Amino acid sequence: MRDILMGVSRAGMKESGDPDLLVVLLPRTCHASFLFTDNHFRSGSVIYSQKAFRRRSSLRAFVVNSGNANCGTGEEGVRHARMMAEKVGEVLGVDPEDVLVFSTGVIGKPLPLDRVLEAIKKACSDLKPLDLEEASRVIGTTDSFPKFTSLKKGSLEVFGFAKGAGMISPSMATMLAFVFTNAKADPETLRDIHREVCDRTFNSITVDNCKSTNDSFGVIALGEVDADREDLRSALEEVSLSLAKKIVEDGEGATRVIKVTVRNASMVAKAREIARAVAGSLLVKTAVYGRDPNWGRILAAAGSTEFPVDPFKVRVFIGGHLLYDGKPRPEAEDRARSHMKEEREVEIVVDLGEGKESWTYYSSDLGYEYIRVNAEYRT
Amino acid sequence: MRDILMGVSRAGMKESGDPDLLVVLLPRTCHASFLFTDNHFRSGSVIYSQKAFRRRSSLRAFVVNSGNANCGTGEEGVRHARMMAEKVGEVLGVDPEDVLVFSTGVIGKPLPLDRVLEAIKKACSDLKPLDLEEASRVIGTTDSFPKFTSLKKGSLEVFGFAKGAGMISPSMATMLAFVFTNAKADPETLRDIHREVCDRTFNSITVDNCKSTNDSFGVIALGEVDADREDLRSALEEVSLSLAKKIVEDGEGATRVIKVTVRNASMVAKAREIARAVAGSLLVKTAVYGRDPNWGRILAAAGSTEFPVDPFKVRVFIGGHLLYDGKPRPEAEDRARSHMKEEREVEIVVDLGEGKESWTYYSSDLGYEYIRVNAEYRT
Repeated sequence: MRDILMGVSRAGMKESGDPDLLVVLLPRTCHASFLFTDNHFRSGSVIYSQKAFRRRSSLRAFVVNSGNANCGTGEEGVRHARMMAEKVGEVLGVDPEDVLVFSTGVIGKPLPLDRVLEAIKKACSDLKPLDLEEASRVIGTTDSFPKFTSLKKGSLEVFGFAKGAGMISPSMATMLAFVFTNAKADPETLRDIHREVCDRTFNSITVDNCKSTNDSFGVIALGEVDADREDLRSALEEVSLSLAKKIVEDGEGATRVIKVTVRNASMVAKAREIARAVAGSLLVKTAVYGRDPNWGRILAAAGSTEFPVDPFKVRVFIGGHLLYDGKPRPEAEDRARSHMKEEREVEIVVDLGEGKESWTYYSSDLGYEYIRVNAEYRT
Repeated sequence: MRDILMGVSRAGMKESGDPDLLVVLLPRTCHASFLFTDNHFRSGSVIYSQKAFRRRSSLRAFVVNSGNANCGTGEEGVRHARMMAEKVGEVLGVDPEDVLVFSTGVIGKPLPLDRVLEAIKKACSDLKPLDLEEASRVIGTTDSFPKFTSLKKGSLEVFGFAKGAGMISPSMATMLAFVFTNAKADPETLRDIHREVCDRTFNSITVDNCKSTNDSFGVIALGEVDADREDLRSALEEVSLSLAKKIVEDGEGATRVIKVTVRNASMVAKAREIARAVAGSLLVKTAVYGRDPNWGRILAAAGSTEFPVDPFKVRVFIGGHLLYDGKPRPEAEDRARSHMKEEREVEIVVDLGEGKESWTYYSSDLGYEYIRVNAEYRT
């Protein structure tokens, strides 16, 4: 981490006047893997970085501006992103093709380009070692706390920072995460591991089922130590899951994290799709907000996908308490309700009793505060 | 309508003590078409009626109980439905195989079978001409107003009644609709028309994207007059759309109906899927609740499906006011906001500018009342 440098400055894009521009400089050009939103309506910065990254699969530096998504402003969005990359390249003396650009914030407002370029110059002229907490604060928008994690296993190090308050608001175009490792990894291995990890972490959280226009998740390999593939995968998953769960915890108006596990399914795809349906169900989310162990809503969501579920065989648990096993178990409702009242993380298990596969999704409950934030956001 | 009889009674399943049991007797065995929920977790009454109807494609009578979904109570649910059909057959002197059974209400509570059978006997012994308004009230649960419509075009008559407050709550297992026509129609034609009509009406409304365990929609042809296929289709669509829109209007906590039209798409499937994504977006629904002409959220939802959308070509209108055509049109925001404040029905149009196909979805806005009703429902 000591070799990674960062620079911070202000371009006046946040109403608070807090720092809103971050430049990160790697010690050398590094292998990396990036995954971007698959929304067809995407930020000019995403369009630019996706194209730039595809040419090289490596990078030397990146810049993030916060408070403005550089999205929905027409074709100039892509041009502005390129100018930001060129400015970073020019001031730091690195190849601009090795610089990626990320933006997050309000959609549809033109980027204040002159101020942004000026802020880039300033950030690049005052570099210091990467501070994960500060980096997360700079890129944060509606986040109520900074999101960062680090992990050390023997000589292997993995660390990262992120922003995103519950993938909530495409008007605050939402989730960015950057994870670093000191491991060596060739681009193909890195890409494969990255996809696996992303599926089990950032692709398995949901706050309101809305896909942002700016979501980006990168893994950067500094290439300093050798690491076993499985060790690297598991460390990346641990750090990424920790960051992803922080985003759910920070979901707007959330009072509970909901952990939904579908287990003993015949196929991974089935476990995943049913977990997604339960975790994304508004009725399940409002029931958790009301501390109501409403297994009927859980089953109705579990049964709503294309995958058949046998209602006479499936079992539903909340906090380990069996509420339904082909018929209701009302005697467990009080204990399940206590679990929902007492724990910050509510555990829902749907056991299909037909195979060995499982999947876990993380979600948050849905309360009045979500409506307040999202109905009144722009006014 | 004069020839259709109904009987009404009480089995004590509604807390209010209002009538909760309806029997409808047709003048003869009639061709019909029924569509049921495709949720794998479904009511015993749906399982029973689906199987019974598949054998015959016709019916003579049906019974609806309200206040109890007969769902999630184990295998006895199917047996109870059969006993209800047999009781109707016995008391009315019709073949029980020609009797269908529908239930709506709370999930997971055993049906009070003795009281229900007694109520069936009572309802069947005091028949009177079908009254659409009263029938809708009897089968209603959280509905705040009765839902019925009738239409006459020359000699062709189409009329129906429904219940459902916004498809909202699988714990109040939700939507039932029965539409009658005096037209003659063979079973195959009726089924084809029914599917087309259902796609454009009940399958194009959404309140919270949740699929109920009890949803059923039937069309019954009394077979008295000849009718042109297209006339019949269009009259059935008009009546069904009117009923479907009443369900959206009655969506819990709804203050606005949202009409989302995707037009000039290259394919019907694309128009439909994008309309569904926009109409179902929590962020669009909360923005409408806040009277915020937030085209960014509309575009983010439109771009979130698998179908490509060109962000530089698509146009977004609210209330006819152009808000985005490849770039923002901020000058129209005030007029769009006025439309949202003044009209009960907010019109959103997404024009893809690439073809000739279109689709319309109806949705409702999402406010505090939805949370209150759904978080506190069972407590």
